[in-house]
Amino acid sequence: MKKFFYPKSVAIIGASHKPGKIGYEIFKNFLEFPGKVFPVNPNTEPILGRKVYPSILKIKEKVELAIIAIPANSVKKVLKECIRKKVNAVVIISSGFSEIGEEGKKREDELKRIIKNKKIRVIGPNVVGIYCPESKVDALFLSKEKLKRPKKGNIAIISQSGAVGSTILDLMAKMNLGISKFVSYGNAMDVNEVDLLKYLEKDRKTKVIAIYLEGIKSNGKEFLKTVKRVAKKKPIVIIKAGKTERGKKAVTSHTGSLAGSYEIFSAILKQLKIIEAKTLEEFFDLCKALSMQPLPKGKNALIITNGGGFGVLATDEAEKLGLNLKEPSKKMKEKLKKSFPEHVIISNPLDLSGDATAERYKIALNEGLKEYDAIICIILMQIPTLEEKIVDVLKKAKKFRKPILCCTAGSEYTEKIVEKIEKAKIPVYPSPERAIRTLARLLSIK
Amino acid sequence: MKKFFYPKSVAIIGASHKPGKIGYEIFKNFLEFPGKVFPVNPNTEPILGRKVYPSILKIKEKVELAIIAIPANSVKKVLKECIRKKVNAVVIISSGFSEIGEEGKKREDELKRIIKNKKIRVIGPNVVGIYCPESKVDALFLSKEKLKRPKKGNIAIISQSGAVGSTILDLMAKMNLGISKFVSYGNAMDVNEVDLLKYLEKDRKTKVIAIYLEGIKSNGKEFLKTVKRVAKKKPIVIIKAGKTERGKKAVTSHTGSLAGSYEIFSAILKQLKIIEAKTLEEFFDLCKALSMQPLPKGKNALIITNGGGFGVLATDEAEKLGLNLKEPSKKMKEKLKKSFPEHVIISNPLDLSGDATAERYKIALNEGLKEYDAIICIILMQIPTLEEKIVDVLKKAKKFRKPILCCTAGSEYTEKIVEKIEKAKIPVYPSPERAIRTLARLLSIK
Repeated sequence: MKKFFYPKSVAIIGASHKPGKIGYEIFKNFLEFPGKVFPVNPNTEPILGRKVYPSILKIKEKVELAIIAIPANSVKKVLKECIRKKVNAVVIISSGFSEIGEEGKKREDELKRIIKNKKIRVIGPNVVGIYCPESKVDALFLSKEKLKRPKKGNIAIISQSGAVGSTILDLMAKMNLGISKFVSYGNAMDVNEVDLLKYLEKDRKTKVIAIYLEGIKSNGKEFLKTVKRVAKKKPIVIIKAGKTERGKKAVTSHTGSLAGSYEIFSAILKQLKIIEAKTLEEFFDLCKALSMQPLPKGKNALIITNGGGFGVLATDEAEKLGLNLKEPSKKMKEKLKKSFPEHVIISNPLDLSGDATAERYKIALNEGLKEYDAIICIILMQIPTLEEKIVDVLKKAKKFRKPILCCTAGSEYTEKIVEKIEKAKIPVYPSPERAIRTLARLLSIK
Repeated sequence: MKKFFYPKSVAIIGASHKPGKIGYEIFKNFLEFPGKVFPVNPNTEPILGRKVYPSILKIKEKVELAIIAIPANSVKKVLKECIRKKVNAVVIISSGFSEIGEEGKKREDELKRIIKNKKIRVIGPNVVGIYCPESKVDALFLSKEKLKRPKKGNIAIISQSGAVGSTILDLMAKMNLGISKFVSYGNAMDVNEVDLLKYLEKDRKTKVIAIYLEGIKSNGKEFLKTVKRVAKKKPIVIIKAGKTERGKKAVTSHTGSLAGSYEIFSAILKQLKIIEAKTLEEFFDLCKALSMQPLPKGKNALIITNGGGFGVLATDEAEKLGLNLKEPSKKMKEKLKKSFPEHVIISNPLDLSGDATAERYKIALNEGLKEYDAIICIILMQIPTLEEKIVDVLKKAKKFRKPILCCTAGSEYTEKIVEKIEKAKIPVYPSPERAIRTLARLLSIK
């Protein structure tokens, strides 16, 4: 499996001369790859100035990873050549297999027969590609203009759907979230969820595993056994599509998977301490928190705010979701009373009021983090007394190694501050409810 | 009430010489005001080059609106002067009244006595200000650097909380949503929700009324009678803070309102066909849809997508919320079959597939809008076959005068397209679930 993400040499079979073509885009991505790259095409005119090989068998050097982007009916021949060439890792981008029905399924079964008992692993077919920012393996066939690549980070993404997967990538790039590995595994003729989970379990660069799932491609029992084990080491976030009857029907038309009973699946996830994101937004919110913050060690949360209304909205949501908003201890209250003006409301939510300064937040965070397991920190930047200094205060509060989830909302000025806070690896959410909901979900696996 | 938003002349009592001070910021906002502006301050040195009056009584011309931004204990005297000067509309920005407890309450009661039976209306005290982009009345004391002002538009915002109100403004500016009037009404010693609703009911520039509420400041019965009547003419969106026991407690500390039974309040809103936003995000999502689109005339919705996975997520959410995703009619199916390649899945969701072009969307929208009451249009822009042309296709689909809610997600390229789609007054949501949820809420008042 490692060869998929850290190959020393890559052959791109179907590298094309025409900009816009899948085989051209993938080859272009590999111009920045530090290892060896061999474009393969029967038309051996150079592509972007690079020598082109008529067949993978004509390459003299060793090839560790092959990416196949040619029409479905030619894949069989090329895959056989890869085996002869002793390539151990192959990504088949091409579509036109089991996802299109009977004829395609036959084609896919043939490929399965070819690789049986051979020392080769295959991702695909029918995928958008794989991506590892660390090694610069970028086999995504979508142009960087339309699909920004996320930077290096600690989230691994496994997506059954290519379109959802690529949208996730593009959004993570926008949110400045870093990823370790991305795999669109499509029809999963060989490598499936279980193989990927087992690899990511041991991958040191991966801290969080995020999965978009329609139906399970592997053996159900083995899948559950594996996620259970992996989830004990690394948090797993799953978003499941096909939760309702109609949704399941749509899944069947989409990837031909059987979605199975969602209720049972969901209940099992809960039992196995796997976080299920209920919506796409929650999926990102959770990935962000897990990527940046430690898990809470207990259920007590303190809401700190400089906007009374936002504090109320957060409190409502927290109560709804059963977060434990216990009152500050007597000791803490007394300490805060000494430091704060009278109009500060020392309770939970702790309302630092509309004239709160960074200094006031510092005191609140220091005292709060001593006695609570997690902090929801609402910071409305529109008020005149708050400046960029708040970023430093938050940074310093990280020393407590407890989760801090921020909420702030606004336009340009606020956005600049948000960027700085998130650079310090403190997640910021645009509404009080989303910050609270994320914390509640993190707590659900405690 | 009209004088608040369309005065010919404004006095700013407490206009300050010091940048950063409330009275300075407000005066600065009025430099662009086309009517007459009179700064008032005992220190009559010019401010920003303008003549300063020692008292409102020293102004010879008529004053239609007075904005008071001076310490609480001086407000009484100045308010009396406003009455002598025959000002009919006064905004008291100053805080230090009923929101701080007994002493402040006494002060506020005195003000109430002063205006009793006088031809004067007062907004405030303890407010962030009022704002009308059309007339350039901008009495918000927060700087434009930190709080961007939204452009002219058709949403009126009434907010009990100043901080929530100003965050709403800043976010609406960011989302490029336009507003007709903004009022932070704070302690509501005179003008309350009912007065504002009655005014907005007849205000031709207002299409949607959006309210942030903690507790009702007016008479409960009158409030309900008024919202009921107004909601028949214009959609009203309310977000209520203080829904849970702890939330209510926080409300009491925040604005001193009694939040009352949320369950009853919520049930009444439903009955009166008022849309209750359950979270701040929903509040914006609803405002956007209502501001841009007509209300659906029935409950049948069609999901169009070019990403199977997104279609499934949308379907799941729609089923959960009870949207009616009926299958396309035989006639429609046959028509689409003739126009589309075989791999397009003609159902609901209608999956145009990963190689969908703008042309394919055009056909789908045209047929869909003939037979459905609303369309959820998912457009993933990462794929190579979709270009900016999709914007024109959507624009043209507006001729059916039925709601179209888009969903797309991505970074720079996608964002550029989103901006263009929203400029054409078609709302775009960043996740399939949010688009569906918004439509479901619009349908709840049918």
